[in-house]
Amino acid sequence: MPANYFMNMEQNEMIFGVRAVIEAVEAGKQIDKILIRRGIQSELSRELFAAIKGLNIFVQYVPAERLNRITRKNHQGVVAFVAAVDYQSLEMLVPSLYEAGKVPFLVLLDGLTDVRNFGAIARTCECAGVDAVVIPARGSVSVTADAVKTSAGALLSLPVCKVPNVGSALQYLKQCGFRIAAATEKGEVDYTATACDGPFCLVMGAEDTGIPAEHLALCDEWIRIPMKGKIASLNVSVAAGILIYEVVRRRQ
Amino acid sequence: MPANYFMNMEQNEMIFGVRAVIEAVEAGKQIDKILIRRGIQSELSRELFAAIKGLNIFVQYVPAERLNRITRKNHQGVVAFVAAVDYQSLEMLVPSLYEAGKVPFLVLLDGLTDVRNFGAIARTCECAGVDAVVIPARGSVSVTADAVKTSAGALLSLPVCKVPNVGSALQYLKQCGFRIAAATEKGEVDYTATACDGPFCLVMGAEDTGIPAEHLALCDEWIRIPMKGKIASLNVSVAAGILIYEVVRRRQ
Repeated sequence: MPANYFMNMEQNEMIFGVRAVIEAVEAGKQIDKILIRRGIQSELSRELFAAIKGLNIFVQYVPAERLNRITRKNHQGVVAFVAAVDYQSLEMLVPSLYEAGKVPFLVLLDGLTDVRNFGAIARTCECAGVDAVVIPARGSVSVTADAVKTSAGALLSLPVCKVPNVGSALQYLKQCGFRIAAATEKGEVDYTATACDGPFCLVMGAEDTGIPAEHLALCDEWIRIPMKGKIASLNVSVAAGILIYEVVRRRQ
Repeated sequence: MPANYFMNMEQNEMIFGVRAVIEAVEAGKQIDKILIRRGIQSELSRELFAAIKGLNIFVQYVPAERLNRITRKNHQGVVAFVAAVDYQSLEMLVPSLYEAGKVPFLVLLDGLTDVRNFGAIARTCECAGVDAVVIPARGSVSVTADAVKTSAGALLSLPVCKVPNVGSALQYLKQCGFRIAAATEKGEVDYTATACDGPFCLVMGAEDTGIPAEHLALCDEWIRIPMKGKIASLNVSVAAGILIYEVVRRRQ
């Protein structure tokens, strides 16, 4: 654990400037996101695009003012956010779980955006012995300092896999023998009746829109928690807790 | 529902001045809390103390500066916070549940302080068909505008009982035939093994300190959720969700 690790916990580490970001990427530093000034054009910026090609980094084009608000330093149109933890590769992790003799249990968070919900779910996963959390590389929470804090530190030990494409990740897991259950209000299977004794992946959707239809179509079953009142849905971190611990209970 | 009800949802209604607060109390308005300037002494303030005697109102003595920060109006050393909903009396509610032929399921939140946790738990209670939430009159969350919002509106329909004394409330529930289960890390009973088919009250403690020892002593059993990781506890709203839905599952 590097010396500046706990600094990262308080505030996300950032890297400013094209050259500095290229060097960080080439040194294998894990970057969550790069903000790039719209319309950037330079020899060096082309070098940056070459360096990050094929890596799992979310690039966002923003007006210069946004970068100026982040820092007064000379950012040259490029600001990178360093990940608070090292993400793991799903294709490395799954075989290693099988080799360790485990019956894997993964939780995939498809498009979650509230960092407090992410932290609470990660904390639940750690407490319940979930093997890893899977998140998409873009349009979703990532492991920021706030997320680590809300997770009560769970994100420091729980493996997190960041995947470029949720659909491909689901297909990969199915090839690996996983049963995939989507938590959705449209579900027809009561959550207490799902088959979770084999390799199992629970998919939770975004707070507002749920799981996208094209991902729902890839899941083996749609499960729901019964609602007895007038409100149609639970808080997503509460729902995740109920579903995750039901798997723990059934596996006991 | 009075016309100014939704204003209350946006910002808690406050009443300023000794006479105004006395009038509100005498008109039966439900007050959550009254802030009174330290060392206040006047004929009128004695009248106020007489008016609120025996009522379930939390009084807090504060420096004049704190009141001045709340309002520029002439507060005369007294500011009252109006409750966002009408609290119910536990002694009225429990008999009415029995009369309605229900097997009551209550959730008592003993000293919870985070309004987001309170809102999330109230939302879960509404979704799970819990009959009422019980909170202490002092040292705890109350039904503020923020709590209503985080609850996704659950607190507008879910009955909330505010009790002057948690110990007395627990003893009353026991006399009424309730089985009382405390959620605590010290628990010896696995949460899936508790007897919840009769009248049942689940007690959840404060985020940091849990349930006070003197209240734990009044509970019939101490239940816990198994922890498989290094972190010793779940977020309280997640834990409540797991426990509440286990009762729903077992009662089905």
